[in-house]
Amino acid sequence: MNKRGLFITVEGGEGVGKSTGVNLLRDFLSRNGVDIVTTREPGGTKIGEEIRDLLLRNRQENVSAITELLLIFAARAQHIHDVIEPALAAGSWVLCDRFTDATYAYQCGGRGVSTEIVRGLEEMVQRELRPDYTLLLDGPVQIGMSRARNRGELDRIEQETLEFFERVRMNYLEQATNSGGRYRVVDASLSLNEVEVEILRFGGELLTCWTQRLAGSWRN
Amino acid sequence: MNKRGLFITVEGGEGVGKSTGVNLLRDFLSRNGVDIVTTREPGGTKIGEEIRDLLLRNRQENVSAITELLLIFAARAQHIHDVIEPALAAGSWVLCDRFTDATYAYQCGGRGVSTEIVRGLEEMVQRELRPDYTLLLDGPVQIGMSRARNRGELDRIEQETLEFFERVRMNYLEQATNSGGRYRVVDASLSLNEVEVEILRFGGELLTCWTQRLAGSWRN
Repeated sequence: MNKRGLFITVEGGEGVGKSTGVNLLRDFLSRNGVDIVTTREPGGTKIGEEIRDLLLRNRQENVSAITELLLIFAARAQHIHDVIEPALAAGSWVLCDRFTDATYAYQCGGRGVSTEIVRGLEEMVQRELRPDYTLLLDGPVQIGMSRARNRGELDRIEQETLEFFERVRMNYLEQATNSGGRYRVVDASLSLNEVEVEILRFGGELLTCWTQRLAGSWRN
Repeated sequence: MNKRGLFITVEGGEGVGKSTGVNLLRDFLSRNGVDIVTTREPGGTKIGEEIRDLLLRNRQENVSAITELLLIFAARAQHIHDVIEPALAAGSWVLCDRFTDATYAYQCGGRGVSTEIVRGLEEMVQRELRPDYTLLLDGPVQIGMSRARNRGELDRIEQETLEFFERVRMNYLEQATNSGGRYRVVDASLSLNEVEVEILRFGGELLTCWTQRLAGSWRN
């Protein structure tokens, strides 16, 4: 029987270099023999990407915070069912660009939705599933926003205020502090080279941890 | 201050004549001086109609029952926030083509989702909001399905099996039995004329109930 794979998430605000981080980590792990599935949220399935489009499209009308939250978990349920759980069960690692920690950061931290509501949906939709390790790319909001603006037109979420993104950042940092060692925080305002070194160091630690797990299961 | 309006829902399976029933009831109440907002679920708002399209569009891939459920409540949250609550608060009646009873019937009865999950979402999204009165158009599944087929191409839900729609029907009838008087069940297999009489009788009772409520509030 295959050993269940590791579930790794990459988190962070706008323009912190998440996509670059995900690609670096994927390539590093792949080169080191890990069978890895890379995916993202919201999205990762056909209907999930359609839901992502509903969420991010710029609109005249307001979307209620609860509607936004339920759409995110609707996409997540399909993503877990179709992609994440089957891959982990087959022994692959899953590397996911954002997951439920982003919901706590954006919907609770940013929008003020109660943590209990998100916790209830998390339990309903994910059951036991939680990330094994999480990489948080953390940097000043102003720098991230100007990077996001340079990429092109801002989507509905990216158009929020600086204060919104400050609350998102603070929420992420609190989660990291309270994560009991699940989180690795990397300073995204370092040079690209330095960020890369930190991400590969994280990758190296994941491999060590995995080797120890395998050795453990082999011994027993 | 305006007296809060009545919240009336019309429920039933495929092809039982819900649209006709809604129109009849709306016209009757309007003619009798009721300020009435007619709407439908899933839908009723811009993003809600987009979610409806996601739900009903025919797909190659399966949609998980929980994804479907969360999409329905996402649309419902926006609908309540933008349409139903403001109308009721302004003293209008709201006549809604399907509401949460349909979620119990289709998702719990049809798909086997647990009642507790739907109850939790209902409380989260609706708080105190429940329909005041519900008209259930009930008829044999085979007849309804052949009517639905005659209307044109079947959507994703309409393509379910006869057994699925039998479970939906039974669930609706159980809800009616346990509703403590909120439900009026009309036999949709009667002639159009007879169904119309039953619906207008229901409308008449609503008017009586409303007059009594108004008189009550005037006396106190």
